[in-house]
Amino acid sequence: MSDATPTPLGPGGEFDRLRAVFARLGSRASGIGDDAAIVTVDGVRLALSCDLVVEGRHFRRDWLTPEEIGWRACAAALSDLAAMAATPLGVLAAVGVPEGSEGAFLEEMMEGVGQAAMFAGASVWGGDLVQAPVVTVDITVVGRAERPVRRRGARPGDRVWVTGSLGAPAAAVAAWEAGESPHPALRARFARPVPRVAEAAWLRDRGATAMLDVSDGLVGDAGHLAAASGVGVVIEAERVPVHGGVAAVDPSIPRSADPSIALRGGEEYELLVTLPPAFGDGEARWFVREFELPLTCVGEVREGAGVTVLRDGHPWDIGGGFSHFRAT
Amino acid sequence: MSDATPTPLGPGGEFDRLRAVFARLGSRASGIGDDAAIVTVDGVRLALSCDLVVEGRHFRRDWLTPEEIGWRACAAALSDLAAMAATPLGVLAAVGVPEGSEGAFLEEMMEGVGQAAMFAGASVWGGDLVQAPVVTVDITVVGRAERPVRRRGARPGDRVWVTGSLGAPAAAVAAWEAGESPHPALRARFARPVPRVAEAAWLRDRGATAMLDVSDGLVGDAGHLAAASGVGVVIEAERVPVHGGVAAVDPSIPRSADPSIALRGGEEYELLVTLPPAFGDGEARWFVREFELPLTCVGEVREGAGVTVLRDGHPWDIGGGFSHFRAT
Repeated sequence: MSDATPTPLGPGGEFDRLRAVFARLGSRASGIGDDAAIVTVDGVRLALSCDLVVEGRHFRRDWLTPEEIGWRACAAALSDLAAMAATPLGVLAAVGVPEGSEGAFLEEMMEGVGQAAMFAGASVWGGDLVQAPVVTVDITVVGRAERPVRRRGARPGDRVWVTGSLGAPAAAVAAWEAGESPHPALRARFARPVPRVAEAAWLRDRGATAMLDVSDGLVGDAGHLAAASGVGVVIEAERVPVHGGVAAVDPSIPRSADPSIALRGGEEYELLVTLPPAFGDGEARWFVREFELPLTCVGEVREGAGVTVLRDGHPWDIGGGFSHFRAT
Repeated sequence: MSDATPTPLGPGGEFDRLRAVFARLGSRASGIGDDAAIVTVDGVRLALSCDLVVEGRHFRRDWLTPEEIGWRACAAALSDLAAMAATPLGVLAAVGVPEGSEGAFLEEMMEGVGQAAMFAGASVWGGDLVQAPVVTVDITVVGRAERPVRRRGARPGDRVWVTGSLGAPAAAVAAWEAGESPHPALRARFARPVPRVAEAAWLRDRGATAMLDVSDGLVGDAGHLAAASGVGVVIEAERVPVHGGVAAVDPSIPRSADPSIALRGGEEYELLVTLPPAFGDGEARWFVREFELPLTCVGEVREGAGVTVLRDGHPWDIGGGFSHFRAT
């Protein structure tokens, strides 16, 4: 039924816990370790994933409109399909809301879910609605995955690329947590992330060897990719594309000087992808023209294990990555 | 992509809210109104549903073991597939747990999820894990639905049947809420509901015209079936099979005298099914022999609308049904 070869899991507390849980489930679990599970039903290959967001943990209600809460939850789940180069087909939305939020709040939030689904070409197939102490949204996404790109195909010599620019969502959260209003450009990247569905298919068609979306931070997700592929990943800090608004948050940190927020910040929903060396700057320019989105080479794949961040050519310890169990 | 003819929704607050939400989503929503959405992907017909349970709303942690919480959440979701006579293939489990419950509690709960999935012949395909203020479990189920039985096919003259016996889960909750320990037989029906997967396929193969699972109470769910099919449903109170342990909870209510707990109690996960008149007591005996489970005729389908409960041949108002937004 399912493509059973397990993908090795990378570092991080959430992964450790999932690993323990799925180890205990033994052979009943399958398809674990990538952004989405790949299963074959009667010859049709599907990608499936779910993404649960909880008020107070992933967002606060005074940060976002109800519609943005719905969009963001749905876009985050769709990004897991994009990370596999799958084509979204449908979503199911299980929603918990506190008493008093069943009216306009709920309708506007579901409007955001529907908009994000429509944006990605998917239908809303179903849902569930219950009362809960805080706003709780679980989006399950289903896509067609004829030629999925997994985390485990990176080979020494491949180069490591990232779409878009990084750091804005973490900078927006930092501003909110400091009691300030984030710059609108930063806020928009947090509130309305864009699942890179078409971009992922384009990259697959150009030979992408491994791919995932940046949800745990660039370095953290590079670690997942390295573990899954059995390789080492080297990232050159100076190359990492930092969102233009990030420097505005803290002018003492010019964007060229300390890109660590772009290296650590999670919930970016950009693509981290490895491509053979034949894919070069010329090909990247086609991508930029097609999608009006940066595509930047940030490093390369080597023999070995883990992630090495280089700054001025020297290894640089940027500290902990992003964890859903600690951040926000 | 999806089987687009919408199923009319029945009464109840949760349905009103879902109706408003999905009306606003307009044509982006499809497959709403049955227990599961039916969609066709590249010629393969799938049933999909999600079921969200929240601590304090659907269960309390001092009522159930972690394993039972997981089993019950997964069995409830699988029951939605059974209600369509679909064959379960896989489940995704999105889980939120409070800080401190990420270890043994989480593993045991997921063990229960995996056991229920295995019982129904499904794999655990994936999951998500986050921190949440209370235990929160959303189970998404995917099944093969070659010949689904919907809510909308009941015709006047059909007879109305129900599997198993009713009232035990509501009686267990009543005992807990009164500060008592429910009788083990009642507790087991609440803690370890059984999705009637094979039973549903058997009933479909004998000509079931409409089917759903009893989650909002027998009368409430009969109302959904009546609305979906555009018919009236008559239920004879004396015929409703009351669980043997229910009388034990309140001996002043002998099981033959007041079956209202069996008429109103939700989260039974038994099947409510309409069958042509040719299906009679002889056929029902085959069912009982095959599954060691009662199958009881409780009424019939007539021209008209809504549900009429008869007691001693006279209409009987049993009061409100079960609502996820009020009960437990």
